[in-house]
Amino acid sequence: MDHAATTPIDERVQKTMQETAPFFGNPSSIHGFGQDARNIIDKSRKVLADFLGAKPSEIIFTSGGCESDNLAIKGVVNAFYRVNGEWRMANNKKPHVITTEFEHHAVLNTVKELEQQGIVEASYVKPNSDGIIEAESVIHEIRENTVLVSVMYVNNEIGTVQPIREIGKAIEEINKERIRNNELGITNKTLTSEFEIRNSKQNLPKILFHTDAVQAAEYFFMNVDYLKVDLLTMTAHKIYGPKGTGLLYARTGTKLASQITGGEQEFRKRAGTENTIGIAAFAKAVELIALEQQGAVRDEQIKSLVSSPEAIRLIELRDYLIKNILSKITESELNGDAILRSPANANISFLNAEGESILLNLDMLGIAASSGSACTSGALEPSHVLLSIGKPHEKAHGSVRFTLGHETTKEDLDHVLKVLPGIIEKLRAMAPKKGVRE
Amino acid sequence: MDHAATTPIDERVQKTMQETAPFFGNPSSIHGFGQDARNIIDKSRKVLADFLGAKPSEIIFTSGGCESDNLAIKGVVNAFYRVNGEWRMANNKKPHVITTEFEHHAVLNTVKELEQQGIVEASYVKPNSDGIIEAESVIHEIRENTVLVSVMYVNNEIGTVQPIREIGKAIEEINKERIRNNELGITNKTLTSEFEIRNSKQNLPKILFHTDAVQAAEYFFMNVDYLKVDLLTMTAHKIYGPKGTGLLYARTGTKLASQITGGEQEFRKRAGTENTIGIAAFAKAVELIALEQQGAVRDEQIKSLVSSPEAIRLIELRDYLIKNILSKITESELNGDAILRSPANANISFLNAEGESILLNLDMLGIAASSGSACTSGALEPSHVLLSIGKPHEKAHGSVRFTLGHETTKEDLDHVLKVLPGIIEKLRAMAPKKGVRE
Repeated sequence: MDHAATTPIDERVQKTMQETAPFFGNPSSIHGFGQDARNIIDKSRKVLADFLGAKPSEIIFTSGGCESDNLAIKGVVNAFYRVNGEWRMANNKKPHVITTEFEHHAVLNTVKELEQQGIVEASYVKPNSDGIIEAESVIHEIRENTVLVSVMYVNNEIGTVQPIREIGKAIEEINKERIRNNELGITNKTLTSEFEIRNSKQNLPKILFHTDAVQAAEYFFMNVDYLKVDLLTMTAHKIYGPKGTGLLYARTGTKLASQITGGEQEFRKRAGTENTIGIAAFAKAVELIALEQQGAVRDEQIKSLVSSPEAIRLIELRDYLIKNILSKITESELNGDAILRSPANANISFLNAEGESILLNLDMLGIAASSGSACTSGALEPSHVLLSIGKPHEKAHGSVRFTLGHETTKEDLDHVLKVLPGIIEKLRAMAPKKGVRE
Repeated sequence: MDHAATTPIDERVQKTMQETAPFFGNPSSIHGFGQDARNIIDKSRKVLADFLGAKPSEIIFTSGGCESDNLAIKGVVNAFYRVNGEWRMANNKKPHVITTEFEHHAVLNTVKELEQQGIVEASYVKPNSDGIIEAESVIHEIRENTVLVSVMYVNNEIGTVQPIREIGKAIEEINKERIRNNELGITNKTLTSEFEIRNSKQNLPKILFHTDAVQAAEYFFMNVDYLKVDLLTMTAHKIYGPKGTGLLYARTGTKLASQITGGEQEFRKRAGTENTIGIAAFAKAVELIALEQQGAVRDEQIKSLVSSPEAIRLIELRDYLIKNILSKITESELNGDAILRSPANANISFLNAEGESILLNLDMLGIAASSGSACTSGALEPSHVLLSIGKPHEKAHGSVRFTLGHETTKEDLDHVLKVLPGIIEKLRAMAPKKGVRE
């Protein structure tokens, strides 16, 4: 019940890993051993590019989602950084980055750090109370020096799906206007004074649009042209592949400064000997998704959902779980929109029960769930995602994320439904009454 | 004959990978699945720490040598970077970094980029004509604002072993003096004017010492206290482990800014879900080295060589190869010191024969070798390593790196010795005579 944290490796993917192991050559070597490995990587790159409707040269393999997010953000920002610490932007301002309050920390902490270092200006868009980022709230934050917008596709904690295509369309309109103004500038050479140049609408940069699609890859439409994104993050271990391999899609023409420098691998965008086994496994995992989605259509109600048999099966299971928890346990509520959400995700708050304690009790009965992102499990602070959608601390503290996957059956859910009410009841009985000191 | 580019995965390591695959939990999850994965990583970290004579908390797992080098250099430099772009150093200077002309590009390009961006001052120490960096030439470059020295342990192209311990000792002496001056400063409060402070020897930072030990791990003594290093890079795929996993050793107390930000993994020094399989395999590869080295002693002539049976076997093979090539082929010469070199490395220049053509001819006969680092195979420029030790372009262009490994036998070398003279002869006959245009 914790597939959003990570997934087991599919046995077919594992088979690919074992079959790839003998092709140990360094893909950069020009001899046969090297070329054999290179061929595996080229083929894998093609599979991933096809899945995203992209060109192979737009796929940069990385060590995972976190590195990809870092590369997208720092890569774009640093590409504006001129030799000797001046900024490349015409108006001499810092680049401005827009992201959301409930991003994964790989994006959120990276933007915050750049902001604290004085490298960027940043805006953090608040989702609505259903956990949806509205396109207008993103557009509202755009400034003349905005160079990057980063909005996740499916929220990792509450599973809500964001209107990436709508946001992409709105950004595209603004970029078109910027291009028109820039073209105007070519013939209009009357702007000469400092003041005029600074206040001109010319020479504004193209706004790039990034989405962290780590949690979306299996169930939502991933075509980068449909989504109108310039940058997209994916990782293998959320889709039944191994840990340690991810990718960043970067649209042709996107200026991106390499964040790991050294050799000339990955089109000079990411140095380091390629993880051949991991890359081949990643491609296999995506092939299995493509197989699962064969003949499926996009669901119009849940905008970009690909209604594969597995997605439909999980939606039924998910709604069965949610409905029964809410009816069996008082003072429990679903976090995030009930419809616009991942087929795999049920995130539920239990008033007056501590999330970590619920998890430990579930774990003792063989049920793995989580209170939020695995990456922040150590922290005792309430989830920044739940706070961002307006949940008070006491509800945010008592929330549990159940995330389903290939192995999940109705029997598993019945087991959860059988033990969970008792656990909550026990914890609520133990909880100190408000205002009463034990 | 190209083991320096990468190595096949040892079958015992492969077995470990297969056995680790079922432990798919996210190591950050608090439930049983997560804790099982966490235990594997903890155990592996202990194995690697023991191998380096370090504490487990000093081991930061990364995606490989290149990322580790980047983390070491940018991590140290960025730790000096103050909020809002000011420098933390007392004298308000940029940090100064010393490295060598013949480093791997993961270090060299990273330092050069930071220099070009105006973030650091940099010095590049030239090796002597035998391919050795003399401790005095490093010390000669130290300035008041020097914060980092990075010298590779074994050169990846010519295999020469560097006097890391001697350099470490010399840096230690300077650091001791700096500490004495700083302590003096506590009682001596008479320095008040700008001028006095700027010229004071007080408040100088500790100089940190990093070594890229990627090519040294199997044959040379890796104890970080013996070597007197603060930072050390290792990677699995050069020691019969898989690609995609490396580590950075960082001595307790070393201020290091995380380069991949997000979650709190790896002591907040490197975000991203850990590659459990890769990490377990890395530890297994190191256990196999420890096994191989059992009872071996340090060779006094080749300062920090660990004379394992495998090292001795390879030295004999290597010298057999070198002696016979030099005697069978005229105008050929060994690059780098004949004694102070990796047991695995024979790098030889052939006058008037083009390196890439030699490699392609060898490849057709089933022999894999290389002209330099695999990471720069695409480039047609002569090796920066050979140029740095004073080789003219025409010799640098005609050089081949043969690197031996576990599978290499005398029969393999005899095969090389049988075909190589003919290849060189053929290419020399085809080569355009100097000054004559075809």
